[in-house]
Amino acid sequence: MAKLILDISMSLDGFVAGPSQTLEEPLGKGGEQLHEWVFATKAWNESHGHPGGEVNADSEVVEESLRNTGATIMGRRMFSGGEGPWEDDPNADAWWGDDPPFHHPVFVLTHHAREPEAKEGGTTFTFVTGGIESALEQARAAAGDQDVAIAGGANVAQQYLAAGLLEEMQIHVAPMLLGDGVRLFESHLGPRWREVECTRVIESPMVTHLRYNVSA
Amino acid sequence: MAKLILDISMSLDGFVAGPSQTLEEPLGKGGEQLHEWVFATKAWNESHGHPGGEVNADSEVVEESLRNTGATIMGRRMFSGGEGPWEDDPNADAWWGDDPPFHHPVFVLTHHAREPEAKEGGTTFTFVTGGIESALEQARAAAGDQDVAIAGGANVAQQYLAAGLLEEMQIHVAPMLLGDGVRLFESHLGPRWREVECTRVIESPMVTHLRYNVSA
Repeated sequence: MAKLILDISMSLDGFVAGPSQTLEEPLGKGGEQLHEWVFATKAWNESHGHPGGEVNADSEVVEESLRNTGATIMGRRMFSGGEGPWEDDPNADAWWGDDPPFHHPVFVLTHHAREPEAKEGGTTFTFVTGGIESALEQARAAAGDQDVAIAGGANVAQQYLAAGLLEEMQIHVAPMLLGDGVRLFESHLGPRWREVECTRVIESPMVTHLRYNVSA
Repeated sequence: MAKLILDISMSLDGFVAGPSQTLEEPLGKGGEQLHEWVFATKAWNESHGHPGGEVNADSEVVEESLRNTGATIMGRRMFSGGEGPWEDDPNADAWWGDDPPFHHPVFVLTHHAREPEAKEGGTTFTFVTGGIESALEQARAAAGDQDVAIAGGANVAQQYLAAGLLEEMQIHVAPMLLGDGVRLFESHLGPRWREVECTRVIESPMVTHLRYNVSA
């Protein structure tokens, strides 16, 4: 069966977004730099319909992830673009534009029922009000034998971790200190102490890819 | 000149000690497991006068660190064993016993003047009331052309980072989630956003050693 994997970029000091998030800067101050390594890859540029990009270890990691992922789960704020006053609008548009980079079904956790939206390039947004298990069930069905990825935010990832549903984590450690912002491991919702198993380390000049088996 | 390096074990979720620190468990719940990879190495056991231990990538990292370090700086609480009521006693004994594992001069940051103490095996504790720059100056003089290591705690490391004095970090990422405790990057005292340079990644089954150049 498809695995549930968290695939996320994090600063060395543990942040997945910087402080002062706005619609213009949904990842906060310095947050976008966490993803510089992705933007530099050929695989990412191709998936966004752009020419160019590097073919390197980072690009292979992105390619693998694109190839293996059949569905994505995200929180409501990630759908509409970070935190902010607009998060109170349950009908806010997707922050991701007309041709989002997913190219597969995306399930958005929300408290407000809403019609599904089909975008260009194969991305569909389905709004799930039944909680994380319902979202996972639907995502698994959509993904077939491919993996289901948690795109974020951090709180959504923590909910799946706490529920014992998360099976793998791939954390891309970016060589920077953000100093403030949204921590991936801010609020531990689950059992306090747990071991995980490091299954793969890939290094590159721009980032270190750490892969962990979480299900134990 | 000798470099100032922070060499520290951290959980994947960013903690260098667990919660509920006591004299019996100075690293808190789960904190000692952060160092399991060290205890398993031949290099560590040798430096503690114990037989046995593994000769592997981890042991080489420990050996390198022992070989290169000529002096250590630590905070007052690390000297006397974690946080707790006893930290108010400026004359508390070293938690490290009669034969501490340093075998070189150790400089303890404190607000209370106190006579130096020479222990067995070459470890001396010198108490520095003149602040972090004074401690560094004394440690550099003692280390000669070897490196000066910051042993911790996290707040001491942050002070050196904020002052722009820290030159390298070697963070040993242990494959575990502590969930709570003392974060290495809790309180950023310095400039908020900064890049660092990842200069080396060494992986082993028990831990991932990430080395960064901080001085930029």
